[in-house]
Amino acid sequence: MVSTGNMWILEKNTPQQPRGLKQRVISALLYCTGEMKQLHTHMKDKSFLLQFSEWCLRGISRVILLNNPLSGALILAALLLESPWQALLGMLGLLASTLTAIILGQDWEEVSSGLYGFNGMLVALLMGVFSSAGDWYWWLLLPVCLGGATTTFISSSLAPVLERWDLPVSVFPFNTVIVLYLACTGTSNPYFPNYPAQPPGAPESTNHTQLHVPQLLQGVVLGVGQIFACETLGPSLLILGAVFLFSPVLAVHALLGSVISTVAGMSMSVQYSFLYSGLSGFNGALGCMVVGAFFLFSWRTHLLSIANALLSAYTDIALSNLLGVVGLPASSWAATLTGTLVLLLTGENFKEYRIPTGKVTSPEHNLRLHKQWSVANTNTTDV
Amino acid sequence: MVSTGNMWILEKNTPQQPRGLKQRVISALLYCTGEMKQLHTHMKDKSFLLQFSEWCLRGISRVILLNNPLSGALILAALLLESPWQALLGMLGLLASTLTAIILGQDWEEVSSGLYGFNGMLVALLMGVFSSAGDWYWWLLLPVCLGGATTTFISSSLAPVLERWDLPVSVFPFNTVIVLYLACTGTSNPYFPNYPAQPPGAPESTNHTQLHVPQLLQGVVLGVGQIFACETLGPSLLILGAVFLFSPVLAVHALLGSVISTVAGMSMSVQYSFLYSGLSGFNGALGCMVVGAFFLFSWRTHLLSIANALLSAYTDIALSNLLGVVGLPASSWAATLTGTLVLLLTGENFKEYRIPTGKVTSPEHNLRLHKQWSVANTNTTDV
Amino acid sequence: MVSTGNMWILEKNTPQQPRGLKQRVISALLYCTGEMKQLHTHMKDKSFLLQFSEWCLRGISRVILLNNPLSGALILAALLLESPWQALLGMLGLLASTLTAIILGQDWEEVSSGLYGFNGMLVALLMGVFSSAGDWYWWLLLPVCLGGATTTFISSSLAPVLERWDLPVSVFPFNTVIVLYLACTGTSNPYFPNYPAQPPGAPESTNHTQLHVPQLLQGVVLGVGQIFACETLGPSLLILGAVFLFSPVLAVHALLGSVISTVAGMSMSVQYSFLYSGLSGFNGALGCMVVGAFFLFSWRTHLLSIANALLSAYTDIALSNLLGVVGLPASSWAATLTGTLVLLLTGENFKEYRIPTGKVTSPEHNLRLHKQWSVANTNTTDV
Repeated sequence: MVSTGNMWILEKNTPQQPRGLKQRVISALLYCTGEMKQLHTHMKDKSFLLQFSEWCLRGISRVILLNNPLSGALILAALLLESPWQALLGMLGLLASTLTAIILGQDWEEVSSGLYGFNGMLVALLMGVFSSAGDWYWWLLLPVCLGGATTTFISSSLAPVLERWDLPVSVFPFNTVIVLYLACTGTSNPYFPNYPAQPPGAPESTNHTQLHVPQLLQGVVLGVGQIFACETLGPSLLILGAVFLFSPVLAVHALLGSVISTVAGMSMSVQYSFLYSGLSGFNGALGCMVVGAFFLFSWRTHLLSIANALLSAYTDIALSNLLGVVGLPASSWAATLTGTLVLLLTGENFKEYRIPTGKVTSPEHNLRLHKQWSVANTNTTDV
Repeated sequence: MVSTGNMWILEKNTPQQPRGLKQRVISALLYCTGEMKQLHTHMKDKSFLLQFSEWCLRGISRVILLNNPLSGALILAALLLESPWQALLGMLGLLASTLTAIILGQDWEEVSSGLYGFNGMLVALLMGVFSSAGDWYWWLLLPVCLGGATTTFISSSLAPVLERWDLPVSVFPFNTVIVLYLACTGTSNPYFPNYPAQPPGAPESTNHTQLHVPQLLQGVVLGVGQIFACETLGPSLLILGAVFLFSPVLAVHALLGSVISTVAGMSMSVQYSFLYSGLSGFNGALGCMVVGAFFLFSWRTHLLSIANALLSAYTDIALSNLLGVVGLPASSWAATLTGTLVLLLTGENFKEYRIPTGKVTSPEHNLRLHKQWSVANTNTTDV
Repeated sequence: MVSTGNMWILEKNTPQQPRGLKQRVISALLYCTGEMKQLHTHMKDKSFLLQFSEWCLRGISRVILLNNPLSGALILAALLLESPWQALLGMLGLLASTLTAIILGQDWEEVSSGLYGFNGMLVALLMGVFSSAGDWYWWLLLPVCLGGATTTFISSSLAPVLERWDLPVSVFPFNTVIVLYLACTGTSNPYFPNYPAQPPGAPESTNHTQLHVPQLLQGVVLGVGQIFACETLGPSLLILGAVFLFSPVLAVHALLGSVISTVAGMSMSVQYSFLYSGLSGFNGALGCMVVGAFFLFSWRTHLLSIANALLSAYTDIALSNLLGVVGLPASSWAATLTGTLVLLLTGENFKEYRIPTGKVTSPEHNLRLHKQWSVANTNTTDV
């Protein structure tokens, strides 16, 4: 069974002397999409620095559930476009956490696929966004490095606990570290002062005016960018493009989740600034994408992804209101918690669609694999 | 061994042509008490609607650790007596969560014994109680349905985690959803406004007057009713009767727990309104009943149930004070947490009395089974 | 292999007719250090009261990760020196929790090594420190007994959960119970009033003056004493001496952790009173000691202990700021959580140094055992 499947893949992936320009473009595009496993194999003979860059780029893309170095490069470009200082912080956090993983002696395969980088990068980006000391405040590099290293520490420790139920570590370490950092430093710290987070349910400061639809639509796109703390349209579109490069299906999930989440925000009448800035969209986007990535695509799981986006959006409003009381943001706690719940679902109607954590690739690739496997299975049953 | 036991049960349960009126009444009473397994078997040939009603009635009784459709009907009557709007909300929540379980494809046996209904019902009842929009505010049906569905979602996900230690899902989903809902909507939401919860330890608003003993005694009975958010005497007594129908031993536990819990509240000098309304009693009642239901009845486990009621009562005051700071109620977190702890106890003196989660029925039935088993064991040892 | 190792130990530990005074002193010292297993064996024929005293003294020393009755006696002396009322409370909490363990029927070996005493003692000490009713307020004995018993209850229940990952119960029960007690009683309770806890990040009430170095150094030593809620120099030194008696390596860890933690506190500019009183030092001390006790000593694990002390110190500031909002102390949550994380580390470079929870003794003894084992292993490979 398996051998037939593998043969089929080999046949497809081996570019047999591309003749025309069109075919060459297509084969180049196929090479760049999905997990880019060929590049990974290709890089194994290269110098450590080149390999390390690939790991880091994969780490960047892991933040948003991808695993593709080109997507990572696109996202890095988006961050540079948004703010070079933020991009610097993000890269430093990524380096700190990846190096800590090497020092701790974590599994080589996991390090090289970027699994120990994304939490550190997120912590660094959020530290930068919340810092009220302005850009290029060099002292901030210190907590960025420490925070990045701590995420790896926590990842390494949470793994054996979550593994029992085949759950990924996901962004639990990031969420934990950023809450602790902001609680530790607070708003009036002389060295590392921060802006306080506003609860979304607080009464509007300005008069209750009409909702501005174009801004609302922009907020939906910004919802995808907010996963990387991006608040401008251009970089957010670039990030969406990076998702599309890895998997068009996931890009649709991201936008859909952001729409659902924004609608959920409106139904709870959160402040307009939350809708316009994409802050009310990004947890729904992540919640929707989790189902898209970890479940085989079908109409059933599509309904599940919508349900999870809704659940994630409402949970985010609740947690933001609660943590906002002490001036803390809920970051992506909501999507992380509901995403973990959805992966634990025991109902017969969804269990068979769940992809084991170690086997998750792009939804398109998963679908193709499943189709081959079904065909192969049918053939055997026929014979 | 087992066969002898089963024979004994069959012999007892088969009504052999009841001759007099008295015997007929007794056999009818025996039919209505306990788990009513005969009815469950009897219903298997009936239409789906009838079966579904039985599941729902069992679901209602599950809230208070029972499993008897007649008890469920009694409780439904109590809710209708208290407030038809509340009863409607409760039934809707129950339907939403049970239907979600069927859609998710949960285990049929569990759905039909009402295990996926009680969390949804509780969420709906509490949403109604805390809503400050008044009765018959039809928009409330929306969150009631969503909240009910979410409890099933969480139940389905928590089950594999808690199963490792043979723990029931209990009311964790309800407690989670109601806290999130109240934190999400808050007190000033334009669509779903809520009353804030008062911490029990807040200083009395009126002058410190004498405690009113009859009201205090009424509060003890209301403690049982508060499990269903009932605040009047009649319905509370009906609910107590429903418990008595399933198991007189559990009814004693419920009242005893409420007494202990009220005394604990007095020792912490909580506000009189908490004592009079039964709010300080219901966590103790639940804590006491958990031990009664999950442990074989003996003087040892009886002491344990008293200890657990005390622990549950004090934990409730602590959590209510903490959550009251942000205007949230502690609902039944205390009883759920201490109940879970008590089920995990490893001490040799109590472990042997613990009934496996899947085998829990009424305490009377458990005792009878145990006695038969002991007799059978002794006989074997003798021979 | 093992037999050779055992022989070696036997040979070493059997005092072969000490000839001179010097040798006698040394052999007496060796008898008093480490786990004092010989005493434990010796006590088995003695009366229950004598045995029980040994268990309790071991329980006292368990608070600070030791297992030596003489250390326990030293610490008891330190507590009596600090405040006889506090010492009385501590002993009562210890008795209550140990007796509860006997009543629950916990494992005899665990009870006799003091594993069910230290949480109760800590709860009692902290109840005394936070009580604003003054010394010799006899009603306080009631919550002390109840709180002590509750810690055993929680220990017994947490054990099967944490065991899955070979984690010790540690001081989770103490931290849970003290937070619940303080939240339950609050500051204005008529029977059990408490002082509110101050968040360390609150702005200084006095003018920002120069840091006083001698007081800072004293604060480092007080950091070790604060593990037992001691705030004076003499008793803190006695406690440090008790640690030294069990293991000089652990004593170095304790002081080093306190230094690191104090520096971390300065980097976050916490209030001077926190630095001077040792409150900012004790979580770091505990964090450092956990690594010292549960990992085989080497330069790698030494770096890990420093990292964990830092992490523990910053986590403590964050949690203290958060819990301080509602007037609660973070007690030793930080060290307990980071200590648990460090024990779960999966990195290859540290995993081999981790000592299984059941085998933890003094670092010196562990090192000696490991050396013998290595030698034995090498010999076998040679042959």
